[in-house]
Amino acid sequence: MDLNQLILDVRQFAQDRDWERYHTPKNLCMAMSVEMAELVEHFQWATPEESLQLDVAKREAVEQEMADVMLYMIRLADVLNVDIEQAIRQKMVFNAIKYPPL
Amino acid sequence: MDLNQLILDVRQFAQDRDWERYHTPKNLCMAMSVEMAELVEHFQWATPEESLQLDVAKREAVEQEMADVMLYMIRLADVLNVDIEQAIRQKMVFNAIKYPPL
Amino acid sequence: MDLNQLILDVRQFAQDRDWERYHTPKNLCMAMSVEMAELVEHFQWATPEESLQLDVAKREAVEQEMADVMLYMIRLADVLNVDIEQAIRQKMVFNAIKYPPL
Amino acid sequence: MDLNQLILDVRQFAQDRDWERYHTPKNLCMAMSVEMAELVEHFQWATPEESLQLDVAKREAVEQEMADVMLYMIRLADVLNVDIEQAIRQKMVFNAIKYPPL
Repeated sequence: MDLNQLILDVRQFAQDRDWERYHTPKNLCMAMSVEMAELVEHFQWATPEESLQLDVAKREAVEQEMADVMLYMIRLADVLNVDIEQAIRQKMVFNAIKYPPL
Repeated sequence: MDLNQLILDVRQFAQDRDWERYHTPKNLCMAMSVEMAELVEHFQWATPEESLQLDVAKREAVEQEMADVMLYMIRLADVLNVDIEQAIRQKMVFNAIKYPPL
Repeated sequence: MDLNQLILDVRQFAQDRDWERYHTPKNLCMAMSVEMAELVEHFQWATPEESLQLDVAKREAVEQEMADVMLYMIRLADVLNVDIEQAIRQKMVFNAIKYPPL
Repeated sequence: MDLNQLILDVRQFAQDRDWERYHTPKNLCMAMSVEMAELVEHFQWATPEESLQLDVAKREAVEQEMADVMLYMIRLADVLNVDIEQAIRQKMVFNAIKYPPL
């Protein structure tokens, strides 16, 4: 995934709509949590089994909500100047210590 | 970001702990929303300005929460076999139509 | 607030629609978190000041989202047989110890 | 439930700690969503059946998280001057029209 290009493109998207003034970390986290809930909504009444078997329309909707969460995550990483990949790799090291393998 | 490698590594991490049986899309979305809230928590009482000026400890904590959200996002993409980058690019096309530039 | 009557009425509402089978605590919490996000959504781009000055339409929408969260809270209290008022009072005692007054 | 007394007591609690300046609707909704997620967390890996059978410690923790959500809901109702019971009753009328009984 070309994350650097995505960061630039999402930043340009915000600039072209004069949205940068709204994009404080506080607001971006709120907005991301709202998109997160729209993803959760697709699964709220599903059994565990049903949640694994999405029909075409539901799957398309789920993919769009995942994308919405990611768009705010990318924007937040840009605003805070966070290297997401490095953060993920570092967290995996912490998690491996915290939760030893069986 | 080497997303394909991350997907494989996060999958292996789950396998090594016998966690795959818990990783239904329903459960992964719930868990992701919990991590999302831990990210939100860092900003809940901050003014917009304060949310832009994180000290070193807060910044480290925020990066870890961003990573936690991403780890579940990566796992969900694996379980549902979703191409995240393609989903993001497609959503950006939709958004550009829905929200025309100024 | 006549909480006991509300519990009975919300239970009857679920029974009349054959929704009780969906109302596990797990599902009710997921659904409540989704309604919670719909409440958050009204404030995501607002300044602190704007969030205090709601116009009539926004205020009506906010009240409805607050009600939606409460309806699931009431249903959850019923399913788990939790005395909400007692739980609130007990938590206030804990909080008074945890956070001493100035 | 003596909601009016709870509103007054929670307001006094905030005043005694000089917390009122933080209690904008925007911030209260954020904080409520964080408590909501702490409630969700108790159920994220549970099967539907397990979520109905809480042991004593888990049950106590769940009650405390429900109380935390309610405390912010009560505070928000105070700050926005919303009559929660009336809002719930009105929403139940809307829901009865939107979702007719079987």
